[in-house]
Amino acid sequence: MTQMAGHRPEHFNWRMEGRVACIQLDRPERKNPLTFESYAELRDTYRDLASAEDVDAVVLLPNGGNFCSGGDVHEIIGPLVGMDMKRLLAFTRMTGDLVKAMIHCGKPIIAAIDGVAVGAGAIMAMASDIRLATPEAKTAFLFTRVGLAGCDMGACAILPRQIGQGRAAELLYTGRSMSADEGERWGFYNRLVDAETIADEAIALATRITEGPVFAHSITKTQLNQEWAMGIDQAIEAEAQAQAICMQTRDFERAYRAFVDKRKPVFEGD
Amino acid sequence: MTQMAGHRPEHFNWRMEGRVACIQLDRPERKNPLTFESYAELRDTYRDLASAEDVDAVVLLPNGGNFCSGGDVHEIIGPLVGMDMKRLLAFTRMTGDLVKAMIHCGKPIIAAIDGVAVGAGAIMAMASDIRLATPEAKTAFLFTRVGLAGCDMGACAILPRQIGQGRAAELLYTGRSMSADEGERWGFYNRLVDAETIADEAIALATRITEGPVFAHSITKTQLNQEWAMGIDQAIEAEAQAQAICMQTRDFERAYRAFVDKRKPVFEGD
Amino acid sequence: MTQMAGHRPEHFNWRMEGRVACIQLDRPERKNPLTFESYAELRDTYRDLASAEDVDAVVLLPNGGNFCSGGDVHEIIGPLVGMDMKRLLAFTRMTGDLVKAMIHCGKPIIAAIDGVAVGAGAIMAMASDIRLATPEAKTAFLFTRVGLAGCDMGACAILPRQIGQGRAAELLYTGRSMSADEGERWGFYNRLVDAETIADEAIALATRITEGPVFAHSITKTQLNQEWAMGIDQAIEAEAQAQAICMQTRDFERAYRAFVDKRKPVFEGD
Repeated sequence: MTQMAGHRPEHFNWRMEGRVACIQLDRPERKNPLTFESYAELRDTYRDLASAEDVDAVVLLPNGGNFCSGGDVHEIIGPLVGMDMKRLLAFTRMTGDLVKAMIHCGKPIIAAIDGVAVGAGAIMAMASDIRLATPEAKTAFLFTRVGLAGCDMGACAILPRQIGQGRAAELLYTGRSMSADEGERWGFYNRLVDAETIADEAIALATRITEGPVFAHSITKTQLNQEWAMGIDQAIEAEAQAQAICMQTRDFERAYRAFVDKRKPVFEGD
Repeated sequence: MTQMAGHRPEHFNWRMEGRVACIQLDRPERKNPLTFESYAELRDTYRDLASAEDVDAVVLLPNGGNFCSGGDVHEIIGPLVGMDMKRLLAFTRMTGDLVKAMIHCGKPIIAAIDGVAVGAGAIMAMASDIRLATPEAKTAFLFTRVGLAGCDMGACAILPRQIGQGRAAELLYTGRSMSADEGERWGFYNRLVDAETIADEAIALATRITEGPVFAHSITKTQLNQEWAMGIDQAIEAEAQAQAICMQTRDFERAYRAFVDKRKPVFEGD
Repeated sequence: MTQMAGHRPEHFNWRMEGRVACIQLDRPERKNPLTFESYAELRDTYRDLASAEDVDAVVLLPNGGNFCSGGDVHEIIGPLVGMDMKRLLAFTRMTGDLVKAMIHCGKPIIAAIDGVAVGAGAIMAMASDIRLATPEAKTAFLFTRVGLAGCDMGACAILPRQIGQGRAAELLYTGRSMSADEGERWGFYNRLVDAETIADEAIALATRITEGPVFAHSITKTQLNQEWAMGIDQAIEAEAQAQAICMQTRDFERAYRAFVDKRKPVFEGD
């Protein structure tokens, strides 16, 4: 098991709020682009989170009014032009590995979207479990605008399950921005929140979730992804097994005892 | 083949309205909780429905202003605490078998949700084909609040396909109630209806459906579930086969003859 | 490679607007029904489109205030009644092959729905990538009303991914019309547009898409369907490979050079 309170990433901000880890890109003057280094460090951080003992949820915060402007044109797109296939695939796999690491980190991730969330920024929002946004949020899967396909880091698989196949197709073919209102109507954003309060609201929601049965939450996260392409009977059997595991946790007993005693349960995550 | 007009379940109300079977839990003073016995009897009833000759649709009705409060804390959760794994898995499989039996019963199921529909009550609503609700409906997948995971009886597979992956994740991690308005906006409820009329409306809708080609309906139900995790080309081939079967029914010919004669078709279910 | 500017179908209208192929059924006095011949010719046309060098997108246009009334009762349904299984399956496979050909043609398809879009007409709308509609659009998956199942040409697989499983179930069991407003709220239609302008708007949208990187668009279309039933990790790996392919196109470099030079990129589709 790992302790991450002392985590000191080089390429983004990291701080703990109780058992919630807060991640914030830190180049606000350029709307927080990603570089090869920050991609890799984010991926490694999520991989470490899978065994982190002192973190129960993650919040992604905006910085300077923007979430993330995606892969830096000069630092990422420039070098990719003319790269050979072996190196290109190593890059696209690294970016895909970031999404896989987010999916497999075992903790709910809440993204707080303000301003620009484009390209890989839109993907990090999409790969989170829950999304809050400000009315100023502009999320764009703009890969097509840099000459690429919409199939980046899982977008053709995940986005249709969040907003529907037809809306996803339009966003991926045109690269246009989804407005905050569209995102809320379509189910991309769970809720719209003012810019002044979005960080606090996201951390508060994450904190409430960490006060629940966090081992069971990790199983919820596992199953939401594990059952993605299962037959329906197989998914039901998978849940019978997964829930039986949770019924042997002490948190299940704690909830029952609290109910009998007419008090609020205090979960401990085991 | 089975005749179910004479079905006399011990643990819930059962009555026929024409060819529509109406199921209603009957402990309104406790908001209609489930017990081990009612779980098992519901499962067995849906299994029998698969071969029932005199039932073409099922309606789930509320009772006393509530739909179902889920597994009874004293009668179910209490005994589960401390149960060994073999017995826990037998229980979670039995609950999953209820959902499987609803899916495989071959008749459309319409749920009429009023008041509380929580835990296994929310699941029975979710496992239905069509859902009406009153403005007072409060549906909560509250497993997390009793220390468990959101993956109960197929919720991590089915709920995301109904309301989108992001909205489902929030409900499953927080256990919060979905309001009637949210449920309608998100596609969980097909329509909101007043409490005084919801039972009649649900039965009327079920009746209209039973006046259609019910053998073909059973194939629709089969395919909606059969194609859940098929590739798209495979699903199209599966439908070519399934629809060719329906084209050899007399109901297909009846519809054609009625059209030619400019009258309303009378379907007979074969 | 094929050139399709000179395509002269017998059973529907075809014209090119730049690199956008416009398809329009042409029996407006009967709301544009399909026949055995037009089904087969549409299927063959989409198959040819897969290798067409001079077409980058397809638009389906209404005619005389209606989109398509589906399989003609006299010319299709009549002959099907009493047909043997071998021939029935040949027919349902041909209709399914039309949807498969639309999915595999490699070009984005935009449907412009006005008035009636029912039966196979609703399916052609559904099998398109993007859908515009007028306020008068009435789309109905009315197979049940002719004695058949809702599982026609992929509807039980595709429609739930566009509008959600519960709404799709209702439409497929009842055969009722979806209104334009419902279709927009539910994500079936991307946008509502007046009847006078819908053809121009659909062609304009298609044209904007063809001004993008069309090879990459074809990969987007491939992946949206390829990943339909993949596990999530497998989808992410598939996208890493697919996007690496796109990074070796000249359009990717063109976009980068244009960005560096602060001008709008001109994509050439290779």
